[in-house]
Amino acid sequence: MSSPEPSGRPRVAIGPTTDPLLCDAVARGEAEPAPLDAADALVWAGNDPAEFPAELPASIRWVQLPSAGVEEWFAAGVIQSHPQVLWTSAAGAFSATVAEHAFAMLLAGVRALPEHLAATTWRQRDFFDKVGTLRGARVAIIGAGGIGRALIPMLAAVGATVVAVNRSGRPVHGAAETVPADRVDDVFGRVDHVVVAAPATGATRHLVGRDQLAALHTRSWVVNVARGSLVDTDALVEALRDNRIGGAGLDVTDPEPLPDGHPLWSLPNAIVTPHDSNPPSVRKPAYAEHVADNVRRFVRGEDLVAEIDPEAGY
Amino acid sequence: MSSPEPSGRPRVAIGPTTDPLLCDAVARGEAEPAPLDAADALVWAGNDPAEFPAELPASIRWVQLPSAGVEEWFAAGVIQSHPQVLWTSAAGAFSATVAEHAFAMLLAGVRALPEHLAATTWRQRDFFDKVGTLRGARVAIIGAGGIGRALIPMLAAVGATVVAVNRSGRPVHGAAETVPADRVDDVFGRVDHVVVAAPATGATRHLVGRDQLAALHTRSWVVNVARGSLVDTDALVEALRDNRIGGAGLDVTDPEPLPDGHPLWSLPNAIVTPHDSNPPSVRKPAYAEHVADNVRRFVRGEDLVAEIDPEAGY
Repeated sequence: MSSPEPSGRPRVAIGPTTDPLLCDAVARGEAEPAPLDAADALVWAGNDPAEFPAELPASIRWVQLPSAGVEEWFAAGVIQSHPQVLWTSAAGAFSATVAEHAFAMLLAGVRALPEHLAATTWRQRDFFDKVGTLRGARVAIIGAGGIGRALIPMLAAVGATVVAVNRSGRPVHGAAETVPADRVDDVFGRVDHVVVAAPATGATRHLVGRDQLAALHTRSWVVNVARGSLVDTDALVEALRDNRIGGAGLDVTDPEPLPDGHPLWSLPNAIVTPHDSNPPSVRKPAYAEHVADNVRRFVRGEDLVAEIDPEAGY
Repeated sequence: MSSPEPSGRPRVAIGPTTDPLLCDAVARGEAEPAPLDAADALVWAGNDPAEFPAELPASIRWVQLPSAGVEEWFAAGVIQSHPQVLWTSAAGAFSATVAEHAFAMLLAGVRALPEHLAATTWRQRDFFDKVGTLRGARVAIIGAGGIGRALIPMLAAVGATVVAVNRSGRPVHGAAETVPADRVDDVFGRVDHVVVAAPATGATRHLVGRDQLAALHTRSWVVNVARGSLVDTDALVEALRDNRIGGAGLDVTDPEPLPDGHPLWSLPNAIVTPHDSNPPSVRKPAYAEHVADNVRRFVRGEDLVAEIDPEAGY
């Protein structure tokens, strides 16, 4: 393929526009920013696959895409039409920020912050029984991918222990216990809180349903930062309305967007955030970190992080 | 003094009533629960100094009190009237739970949870600019006592760095930087958020005042879990009203209790919790942990934790 420029440093193009954060990331990775037609690699920051160049120069050996999931890029045929290129996604780059959001909702719930925010008078004794702690609490993390694993040290820092649920049941680092997905139903009866961070598949639809909610206790919080379909919304609304669980923190809903007038908007024990756990303002610096890391690996000839498998489609 | 019972295990009385959690703690500490007149030590769970026995058996060598601050016990003359006894407080036992509360308010604020809770419609783009992150944020912890030090690993777990402020300026473990209290004013201009966890003294009154708030930026949160007097309430209300800072999380207020109708009750960027960061439900198991530790030390003849100095008055 193309030979590097005389300095010997690989050259990396940035598109669709030149972004100072990404220029800095390329420089930190010890590559040379370059125009597309003189580059060895392309770091892409656009979210719309239709805007991606139909043709790439033959010199391009690697393309970095800005999203963690790349279904849309496959659907648009972008990845398949450049078989000579190594593609990487941003998978993993945003795990910590989504985990932080899940943690914020869980901790706010356990500390009764929603109810505090609604209060307009100092009724200390009323709150004494409502304020809880994550210290000593057992928290199930359903789906121990990047987000789930990023959440574990946060929970550990406040003294909670983690029951991880993953497909294989292979022990997850930092979890007190790991349970295989086919035994997930057993978990609800013996944890204090549940965080859902698993992919949406046929098997995970309504993974948190009526029976699972019934197994939780009246102080339990359920947090969902995965996909709305993993939780049975109607069953959740009933449990929240009857105070059969402590509350729910939802960054994703079913339906999504949550329509105006939906009961989840007015239930005092529900925190709804409109799928904004990883907003652009936070995503940009996180993506730049990921780019700097991958550029550095590219320059050194090491394996890249989050390589896309064109056969598997992710 | 009294000789231990034939088994050789020191005997510990519990008062004013026998509490199962404390009995268990005495047993875990490997001492023998005993009635007061046959005991070597007394673990006290009552909060009112007036209820404390006027006379103690001569066999009692150690008394454990249930509060972290013991001003009231000195004021009532309880400690001074038993000069033959070693007294310990519960100082330190509740640091982690108060730190967790401060952390919950800060994280909820940075993630814009108060505003999310007020929303009744899915307006994702509006929130994109409002959701922040503690990752990479600099947080000042003013007062690096037990609570401040317990907060450091929590902040580290979400990727924040800490600027600690203490009297001496001697480096605090886990802080990126430690600043002596006489230079605290310099800190406000170069941190993202401030947590107040210092004792209330003449020197710390209005430590966060108009000038300090003006040095913060429009996304900064101020959290106070110490005493209300450390923050100038009027200046804070103005800053919150004009959105000159991001918000405030207050477990303590000035005046306290916060009167009905006070602007802090209705400001959307203020979280007020009625001095309930360490509620009895959470305090009891934490005190039991502290008791188990001190009983174990007593049994082994080791130094006890949180010894009270009758000369110093704390």
